[in-house]
Amino acid sequence: MTITFSDIEQAHHRIKHLVVKTPLLNSPRLDTIAGRRLWLKAEPLQITGSFKFRGACSAISALSEEALARGVIAYSSGNHAQGVSLAASIFKTSATIIMPHDAPDNKVANTRRYGAEVIQYRRGEESREAIGARLASERGLTLIKPYDDPNVIAGQGTVGLELAEQIVTQGLSTTAVLCCCGGGGLSAGIATALEATLPKVILQTVEPKHFDDTARSLALGHRVANRAEQGSICDAIVTPTPGELTFPILQSLAGAGLAVSDDEVLQAMFHAFDTLKIVVEPGGAVALAAALFSDHLPDCEDLVIVLSGGNVDPRLFKKALVAT
Amino acid sequence: MTITFSDIEQAHHRIKHLVVKTPLLNSPRLDTIAGRRLWLKAEPLQITGSFKFRGACSAISALSEEALARGVIAYSSGNHAQGVSLAASIFKTSATIIMPHDAPDNKVANTRRYGAEVIQYRRGEESREAIGARLASERGLTLIKPYDDPNVIAGQGTVGLELAEQIVTQGLSTTAVLCCCGGGGLSAGIATALEATLPKVILQTVEPKHFDDTARSLALGHRVANRAEQGSICDAIVTPTPGELTFPILQSLAGAGLAVSDDEVLQAMFHAFDTLKIVVEPGGAVALAAALFSDHLPDCEDLVIVLSGGNVDPRLFKKALVAT
Repeated sequence: MTITFSDIEQAHHRIKHLVVKTPLLNSPRLDTIAGRRLWLKAEPLQITGSFKFRGACSAISALSEEALARGVIAYSSGNHAQGVSLAASIFKTSATIIMPHDAPDNKVANTRRYGAEVIQYRRGEESREAIGARLASERGLTLIKPYDDPNVIAGQGTVGLELAEQIVTQGLSTTAVLCCCGGGGLSAGIATALEATLPKVILQTVEPKHFDDTARSLALGHRVANRAEQGSICDAIVTPTPGELTFPILQSLAGAGLAVSDDEVLQAMFHAFDTLKIVVEPGGAVALAAALFSDHLPDCEDLVIVLSGGNVDPRLFKKALVAT
Repeated sequence: MTITFSDIEQAHHRIKHLVVKTPLLNSPRLDTIAGRRLWLKAEPLQITGSFKFRGACSAISALSEEALARGVIAYSSGNHAQGVSLAASIFKTSATIIMPHDAPDNKVANTRRYGAEVIQYRRGEESREAIGARLASERGLTLIKPYDDPNVIAGQGTVGLELAEQIVTQGLSTTAVLCCCGGGGLSAGIATALEATLPKVILQTVEPKHFDDTARSLALGHRVANRAEQGSICDAIVTPTPGELTFPILQSLAGAGLAVSDDEVLQAMFHAFDTLKIVVEPGGAVALAAALFSDHLPDCEDLVIVLSGGNVDPRLFKKALVAT
């Protein structure tokens, strides 16, 4: 089961009146630091502060009236939670969100503010999948998975649809798009959109060091897991393994995966603050960190970077402000 | 001497390939805090981090080849300096910038990075106008004034041109645009653009408390000065009096001026960080502060706010992160 470009176009038609077509930003000072021109797709400016709102709207807008009458359920450390919570409220259905006990306070609070009921669980002691399955069965709720759902991947792929148009409009001579990768919904969606529109432009995933399950899986040719589930500041993109649906797509379309350190991520967050005036969360800044610090970058004049979200706790953001 | 809508259209044609058409952002959570829908024109995303790049490009693009061969000079506490420095480099002319000794470090450093020669002076001891006049005369440089220049006002007015289009496209039922005001170049330019395109939409200026020379001048019917020249965190918009060219425009077109406290500004900066994921400097956040905290707001469902710039020192930004 995979997704096609047509799925992305259909998702685009279902959600385009709800989502922000985010700008592709450039900064002469950031270009000087990077030694080439960088073009940054600014998904922190998306409604709810991350691209996850696209996939949530795409999936919920595809539900039947009966399913909408019963409600939806999701599990997420934060950004998918906020996206599903608001999308559910727009489509007038109820949302139940299962979040880890140690999710950032602001993400839990905002998920509640958008209207969802939040149920918290302890990582390591309980399985969110088991809680989700039980509640979905008891209440007849539809589970909106964070990445292993064709409608979610298609919704995230609308980022790639916009990128392709913006790359052509700006006349960029780029051969690569760097994109953060957790479960792979965003990167698989963008890679699918690029294959159909700009086949010479290759997507490369970026992950935190020690949590680079996708890079290692791509290199090995099969899905492998990370050793740990915690220990990175990039909470939004720490997942145990690549997704079942997303990994085959990336295996077929993506280039080699990159990885960056927490310190490089904090520096990238500072440069986004200082030159682009955009607030980026750690998980959303890994691709910019790679563009600034990686030794394994593609050789092209213009490099396109996806900044995926900005839902960062103020206390953590302060650390980025002293990063350079 | 005033400016017309045609001047703004001509400036737009000269600079549209150089400037960012900045997005008009909305956040459901910010709407909840404000109790109505807010629409925020995000000029921190402009090249050089503020709207000042528009006016600088407009003025320098209108110079003769002879004037470009000699170079330009400007005085500014920071944002106009950066705009002129980069615009000069784009039009291949040299820039000399006179900045106060206590201008924020990042603004001085960035002005140099864009290519200008920076000359610093001591506020209170020396007159920047005298230094500027002497250097302009000695070196044959063209002075690019920060606001009292028709081409600069016309350039800033392109914000209003974009706003008018965005207000219509979004179908907003707004009757007011709130805009920060220092010398008045931005607000006079926007007011001129709105008069020609959406005459029912009235611009209102917003200033820091105790530095509300424009609000008091509008109320009194003639230009009055502030008592102090320092003592606000809003360094970008502290000017002694309204401009000679800009004040008659505002007198003819603007509504009553508003004023906000430093604490309200810090809270507005936090909300822009938290809900919009945009970095706003204190002077750029006064209009949002008014929208959130003023008791004298217009009675309309949608309120349009100009966020004018984001060139804030990280140390000051940290204060905003603990503001609420």
